[in-house]
Amino acid sequence: MSRPVVGMVGGGQLARMTAQAAIALDVRLRVLAASPEESAAQIAADVVIGDHDDLDTLRAFAAGCDVITFDHEHVPTDHLRALEADGVAVRPGADALVHAQDKLAMRERLTGIGVPCPDWALVTTAGELAEFGDRIGWPVVVKTPRGGYDGRGVRVVATAAEAADWLERGPLLAEARVDYTRELAVQVARSPHGQAAVYPVVETVQRNGICREVLAPAAIDEDHALAAQRAALAIAAELKTVGMLAVEMFDTPAGVLVNELAMRPHNSGHWTIEGATTSQFEQHLRAVLDLPLGEVAMTAPAAVMANVLGSDDPERFGDLYGGYLHCLAHDPGLHIHNYGKTVVPGRKVGHVTVTGADPDDLLERARHAAAFLRGEIDG
Amino acid sequence: MSRPVVGMVGGGQLARMTAQAAIALDVRLRVLAASPEESAAQIAADVVIGDHDDLDTLRAFAAGCDVITFDHEHVPTDHLRALEADGVAVRPGADALVHAQDKLAMRERLTGIGVPCPDWALVTTAGELAEFGDRIGWPVVVKTPRGGYDGRGVRVVATAAEAADWLERGPLLAEARVDYTRELAVQVARSPHGQAAVYPVVETVQRNGICREVLAPAAIDEDHALAAQRAALAIAAELKTVGMLAVEMFDTPAGVLVNELAMRPHNSGHWTIEGATTSQFEQHLRAVLDLPLGEVAMTAPAAVMANVLGSDDPERFGDLYGGYLHCLAHDPGLHIHNYGKTVVPGRKVGHVTVTGADPDDLLERARHAAAFLRGEIDG
Repeated sequence: MSRPVVGMVGGGQLARMTAQAAIALDVRLRVLAASPEESAAQIAADVVIGDHDDLDTLRAFAAGCDVITFDHEHVPTDHLRALEADGVAVRPGADALVHAQDKLAMRERLTGIGVPCPDWALVTTAGELAEFGDRIGWPVVVKTPRGGYDGRGVRVVATAAEAADWLERGPLLAEARVDYTRELAVQVARSPHGQAAVYPVVETVQRNGICREVLAPAAIDEDHALAAQRAALAIAAELKTVGMLAVEMFDTPAGVLVNELAMRPHNSGHWTIEGATTSQFEQHLRAVLDLPLGEVAMTAPAAVMANVLGSDDPERFGDLYGGYLHCLAHDPGLHIHNYGKTVVPGRKVGHVTVTGADPDDLLERARHAAAFLRGEIDG
Repeated sequence: MSRPVVGMVGGGQLARMTAQAAIALDVRLRVLAASPEESAAQIAADVVIGDHDDLDTLRAFAAGCDVITFDHEHVPTDHLRALEADGVAVRPGADALVHAQDKLAMRERLTGIGVPCPDWALVTTAGELAEFGDRIGWPVVVKTPRGGYDGRGVRVVATAAEAADWLERGPLLAEARVDYTRELAVQVARSPHGQAAVYPVVETVQRNGICREVLAPAAIDEDHALAAQRAALAIAAELKTVGMLAVEMFDTPAGVLVNELAMRPHNSGHWTIEGATTSQFEQHLRAVLDLPLGEVAMTAPAAVMANVLGSDDPERFGDLYGGYLHCLAHDPGLHIHNYGKTVVPGRKVGHVTVTGADPDDLLERARHAAAFLRGEIDG
């Protein structure tokens, strides 16, 4: 293969940052975006505007690509299977990706291969949910199997009645509410021929269901870190993932429990752009192209990433660029990543990263910059 | 200014790597390229095809930009002055840039501000050249004032007669041939409001007039390194450069002497992408936009960059991608930058960078990868 074309379905910030990595390797990245305003569509040289739910659109898009990969999980699984039947190199493949698309399929499979998960049950009626809650204790977490992200599609309920509206629409995943000490994430890159590389375990700090900061490496016991990395490697191997896999976990006194999976570059790995020898975006490209994987060692003892969320006052803070003068002067070591997205309250519109030796100092710096860019601190 | 548009005249690899930095900052980079095949034109979302020698083209290009900057020195100085008269923010400005375009203007100015240079003379006749050579000793270096790069426009002559053909076309710069221990480069970023930041002094290893490797930091005495940094800062301040300035120097037992200037991102600073907190490409954008400059500290004790030159057998090694499997497996810490250019023997078509603690090991690794990608080593 010479100068391969990688087709990425989805035009968000993950595709945008993958485009930067593609430029270095001279891999042609073709982006299927829903609109020209999407984050990646603004900056990529090769953009197709179309609907990822439409099989004909996907087929036409795939026709010019050596490999197809994804910025999100929203392509219907049947469409992925149809592309594979056409002979398209879909990476990760439908059989793997379904476990990132469907939380029930994920729980069944992980339990089957012995990966520790929270107690869970498939519930189709209020009676089944009540039975589960009475057995493991209320409140219970209920999740729609598909379509959730950033806290959407997740509800904590104290009674079965509180999930009645969702149950009308189909089966739900019911889970024990885990009493965790912190949330973790582990990323594994895996190639079609089976090479795998696992990044350091990181802590993800969530507020209102949205990831706010990522601390690399996580300040956890070495045995928990190793268990987390082994679980992530086992999932990658068993599910035959290709590309980046992110495994979100809960750390508990009894060990780590897997929460969710994503099979693409992930918010928990944005720190790798500056903080690891090989960024998750380059690694994803290398993996889907079956090139040798890059070194995953950290470039500094610690790295902290903070998401920049859209201001609650987009009229005043609708332009992140307005915060650059202060933030860049305040902290010459700061790395700003601005996704070019329209500022909507609470939307992830960028992130900042700092690397260094002192995790507390890094967290304070990253938080300051993210808060300032969001308009939470007046200059 | 919100979401500024930076217009970069020239579509080579410097514009290409600047585009990667522009994506992170959400600065819109508009590239004026001579053809759609140029390195940056292949990957940028906003490309204008046109002739940088044509003032009307430049005016139309500048009309949609907040700032104009450059990937090369080839825009006629009069055109730059005309754009400035139109009110265009040309950065660096014509008064500064002329010293990177015209070697005679550079020598006159540097000598005027007391920066150490090799002995030199403006010569317009064979008699003047002979007088200079007889005075400082033969052989003598003669240079055409404009248009030289990568060893072109430079000739070492043992007699005045050997420069007769060039003298027919105009005045030349004659210089003493310096007996140097190594070649150095220093980069300074400077903003319109006067903030300046100087990167570590690096050694540039040249063969046949072409830079082959860059070693950061240069293994030189601290007093020579400080003198080199002070000279570069003085040049930036006196000439009021804006953006990146590269000062190429000779290190001699008696001290450093300035060889050439470039006022743009430069080959001697490609190592900063991975090896410094702020890359020269992001720094150039920050400087021309008058944003605060970024930290210039190294991310590792040492970094080595090696240029990948086009193979002498482009039929066989015309596709750098063919070398990726070996190079990336051989060295998981290797960073490949492939400019997407057609392979022509000796042309700079990419570079590789490695960072770490042991300069000798880094040099061996970078040389191996560059040689392999060029087809000099059979896998």
